[in-house]
Amino acid sequence: MTAYDALMAHQRETEALGQISGRLAWDQETMMPRGAVDQRGEELAALQSVLHARKTDPQVADWLASIDDAALDLVGQAQMRHIRRSHARNVKVPARLAAEIARVTSRAHRIWAEARADDDFAAFAPTLSEVLALRREEGAALADGGDVYDALLQDYEPGATAAELDAMFGALRPRLVALREAVLAQPAPAGLEGSFDEAAQMKLSRLVAKTFGYDMSRGRVDKAVHPFSSGSGDDVRITTRTNALDPFNCIYSTIHEVGHASYEQGIDKGYRLTPVGRGVSMGVHESQSRIYENQLGRSRAFCGWLYSQMVEAFGDFGIDGPDAFYAAVNKVHRGFIRTEADEVQYNLHVLIRFDLERALISGALEVGDLEAAWNDRFAADFGYPVDKASDGVLQDVHWSAGLFGYFPTYSLGNVYAGCLHEALRAAIPDLDDQLAKGDLDPATSWLRQNLQQYGGLYEPREIIERASGKAPSEAPLIGYLEQKFKALYAL
Amino acid sequence: MTAYDALMAHQRETEALGQISGRLAWDQETMMPRGAVDQRGEELAALQSVLHARKTDPQVADWLASIDDAALDLVGQAQMRHIRRSHARNVKVPARLAAEIARVTSRAHRIWAEARADDDFAAFAPTLSEVLALRREEGAALADGGDVYDALLQDYEPGATAAELDAMFGALRPRLVALREAVLAQPAPAGLEGSFDEAAQMKLSRLVAKTFGYDMSRGRVDKAVHPFSSGSGDDVRITTRTNALDPFNCIYSTIHEVGHASYEQGIDKGYRLTPVGRGVSMGVHESQSRIYENQLGRSRAFCGWLYSQMVEAFGDFGIDGPDAFYAAVNKVHRGFIRTEADEVQYNLHVLIRFDLERALISGALEVGDLEAAWNDRFAADFGYPVDKASDGVLQDVHWSAGLFGYFPTYSLGNVYAGCLHEALRAAIPDLDDQLAKGDLDPATSWLRQNLQQYGGLYEPREIIERASGKAPSEAPLIGYLEQKFKALYAL
Repeated sequence: MTAYDALMAHQRETEALGQISGRLAWDQETMMPRGAVDQRGEELAALQSVLHARKTDPQVADWLASIDDAALDLVGQAQMRHIRRSHARNVKVPARLAAEIARVTSRAHRIWAEARADDDFAAFAPTLSEVLALRREEGAALADGGDVYDALLQDYEPGATAAELDAMFGALRPRLVALREAVLAQPAPAGLEGSFDEAAQMKLSRLVAKTFGYDMSRGRVDKAVHPFSSGSGDDVRITTRTNALDPFNCIYSTIHEVGHASYEQGIDKGYRLTPVGRGVSMGVHESQSRIYENQLGRSRAFCGWLYSQMVEAFGDFGIDGPDAFYAAVNKVHRGFIRTEADEVQYNLHVLIRFDLERALISGALEVGDLEAAWNDRFAADFGYPVDKASDGVLQDVHWSAGLFGYFPTYSLGNVYAGCLHEALRAAIPDLDDQLAKGDLDPATSWLRQNLQQYGGLYEPREIIERASGKAPSEAPLIGYLEQKFKALYAL
Repeated sequence: MTAYDALMAHQRETEALGQISGRLAWDQETMMPRGAVDQRGEELAALQSVLHARKTDPQVADWLASIDDAALDLVGQAQMRHIRRSHARNVKVPARLAAEIARVTSRAHRIWAEARADDDFAAFAPTLSEVLALRREEGAALADGGDVYDALLQDYEPGATAAELDAMFGALRPRLVALREAVLAQPAPAGLEGSFDEAAQMKLSRLVAKTFGYDMSRGRVDKAVHPFSSGSGDDVRITTRTNALDPFNCIYSTIHEVGHASYEQGIDKGYRLTPVGRGVSMGVHESQSRIYENQLGRSRAFCGWLYSQMVEAFGDFGIDGPDAFYAAVNKVHRGFIRTEADEVQYNLHVLIRFDLERALISGALEVGDLEAAWNDRFAADFGYPVDKASDGVLQDVHWSAGLFGYFPTYSLGNVYAGCLHEALRAAIPDLDDQLAKGDLDPATSWLRQNLQQYGGLYEPREIIERASGKAPSEAPLIGYLEQKFKALYAL
C-alpha cells in the first residue's frame, strides 16, 4: 500500500466517524429524549476524543512527509490539499489552546443564552472578552505573522481575504441601504391571514423539497427548533419548523436547507467519505441554499406554482392571486433579526457583524464598546434604533462559540448565488416557463452539473468562476435585487 | 490517578462509544433513509474498529495487572469482574479468528435470508457448517479444556452451565407437552374481529408503556420491522410494530420491550456508562421482559383494565367482556414460529433449539442432519409436522450470526420470571387489585427495588436468588402455567 493509500484509508475512517458525530447532532435536535442530554454530552465527548486522537496521530505526519502530491491525479491533489490544510492547522494550534477554546466556548454558550434572555450585554461581555482573546491567540498562531482575521476566515472560506470581501460588501452596502429606504417608503403589500395547519405545512414542505430535487431515499425532513442540514453523501437530513401563523417560515426554511442538502447529495459518489466528498466552503454552501430559496424559490414564476399548491393545501388565506402572493412572499418589513430578514435587508445585517468582528479581532474595538458600536451602526443602516440587546448584539450564537470569520460567508454566499443565477438564466433562457410549472429539474440539474458534483475538487472561488464563467462580483446580486424590488414596489 | 481510576476512565469512554453504536443501530431500524445503507455500513465499521482497538489496547493489560480487586469496594469489585471477564475473552480468541467470524457471519446472514425465502435448508447448510466450525474453534479457545458449549454460554449468561439448564428444561418439557395437548383438545376461545387503526394502536401502546413505568423523558417508542429495546442509562429507546388485524402484537411487543427498557432505565444512576450500568445477562433481561409481558400484562386482573382501554380506543371488536378478552389474549394456537408462540408453547420452541445446538457443538449432530432432527423433534413435541424450512429450521436468524448459546437464555428468562412472580405475589398480596386498576407501580417498583437497580452488581443467578429469596427453579413457572391455562381451558 502506498503512503497515499494508507493515508486515505485512515482519512476515510475519520470521515466516517465525523459523519457519526453529525448524525448524533441531528438526533439531539430531533429525536433524543430530553432526559438524555447529559449522557449524550459524555457520548459526544468520547467520540470527539477519538477524532482528536486521529487528527494528531503521528502516523499522519509521516504519510504527509512521504507523499509527492505532484505525482497524484487531480482528485488526489485535491484530497491532499484538504488534508494538508487541516493538518497544518492542527499542528499550529497548541493542544492547550484548543482545549481552552473548547472549555470556554462551552461555558460561553450558557452565559450568552442567559444574557440574551435577560437583555443584558454586560453579563456576557467578560466571557466574550475571554473567547475573543483565545481566538485572537489562535488566529495569531495560524497567521504566521500574516493577518489574524484572514487566518480565522480560512476555517470557513479557504482562499478568501477580508480585503476582497470588504471591496464586494463595501460596494453592496450603500445600494442596499438606498433600496431598503425606497422600498419601505412605499405602501406595504398584503400579508397572509388566518391560521395554517402545521401538519399540512410539513406535507407541503416535503412536496416542495422533492420538487427541488431533494432525494428522499437518501435523506429525510423533520421538525426542529432551528432548521439545519446535516450529513454528507447518502445520508443528508434536513429539518424545518412550523408556525401556525407563518407557513412561509416552514416552506422557505425547507427550500433553504434543501439547497444545502442537494449540494451534499449531488457530489460525485466516488468522493464519498473523503475530504473532497463534502461541500467545499461555507460561502459556496450558502450560495446553494440561497439560490434555491431566493432566486428560484422567491421568483415570480415559481410563486405562481407555489400559490396553487398553497390554495390546494389551505384554501383561502387572504391573498388574491399569484401576483399578490409573489408580493407577500417578498414583503420587505422592518425588523431587528438577521434570520428573519428579507432579501433586501439580509446582507445589511451580515455586514454589521463583518465590520464589527474585524474591529474586535484587530483590537480597534473593545468588547466593552461593542453594544454601542452595534447600535450606532444599526441605526445608520436601518434608520431606527435597536430596542433591546436580544434584538441587537446578543441575537446570534456565533461569537459565543468563537465563530469569528463565519458571518461574511453568509453574504459571500449571496454574492455567489447572484453570479450563479446570472449564468443560470443565460444557460436556460426559458427558465421561468419551467419554474411556473413547478419544474425545478433544469435549474437544479444545471447547478449539479456545473457546481455541486465537484464537492471539494476545486477551491471555492475557482468553482464559482468555473460555473458562472466570470470572476465573482457583487454586481449580479445587487442588479438582481434592484430590478426585482423596484418592480415589486413600483419604484 | 490510581490504575483503577485510569482503567475506569478508559472504560467509561468505551461504554460511551458502545452507546453510540447502539444508537446508530436504532437509527438504522427506525429513521435512516434506505439509500444510506452502504454508507452506514462504513460508518459502523469505523466505529467498530475504534472499539476493537480500545479493547485490545495494551494499557488495559497493564492496568489489570496492577489492580488489587480485593482492596476495592463492592461496586469496584463488580466492575473489575466484568472488565476482567471481557478482557480474558479478548485475549483468548486470536484476532485472526475474531475477524474470520465477523467476515463469515456477515456473509452467512445474506445466505440464510435467501435460503429462508426459498425454503431451502441445503442452500444454507454449507455456510452454517463454516459458522459452526469457527464458533467451535472459538469455544475451544475460550474453554481452556473445559466444556465448549458452556464456554459459549458465558457470552450471554455468565455463570450458567448447560447441565443446570438441562435439568430445569428437562423437567419443564414433558409438563409443557402435556399441557399443550390438553389445552388444544379443548374448544378455542373467540378471537378479535375487524380492523384496528394503526395510529390508535401506537397511541394505546404509548399509554401502556407509561402505565408500566417506562420513562418517556429518557426513551421513546417508534415503529420498526422487529420490536427491540436499545441503549442504557438515560437513553433507552424501544420499538414495536403494528398489524391492522392484530393489535395484541403491537401492545404486547411494547410491554415486552418496556420490560427490557425499564431494567436499563432502572439501574442505579451512579453506574451509568460503566459495565455495572447495564443489564447483567440475557436471561435476567428476558426475565424482566417476560414478567412484564406475561405474568403482569397477560394476567386476568390487568386484562380487565386493558379491555376497557381497548374498547375506548377501538369500540366494539367482537369480544364480549373482560373474561372473554382475557381468554383471547391468552389464546393457545397451533403454529410453527417461536416469536409468535403463546406462553404454553414458547419454551417448547426454545428447548428444541437448545438441544439441537448442543448436539451441533458437541459433534453429536452433523449440520447435514439438522433439518431432519429439527422436524422429528418438532413433530414429537407439537404433534404435527413442520410444513417448510422457513417455518422450521430456517426461521431464526441466530445461528447464521453464530449465536450458539443464546437460545437457552430465553427460557431461562421465563424460569427466572416465574421465580420473581412467585416472590412478587408473596410481597404484594393485593397485586391483582392494583393491576385491575391499571396501577403497575407497586409491581414495577418491587422489581426495580429488588432487581433492576443493581444492574451488573451481582452475578445473574445471584440477583435472582436475592430478589426471589430462593435458588432458581422451573417449579414456579410450570406451576403458574398449569394453574392459569387449566383454569382458562376448563381442564
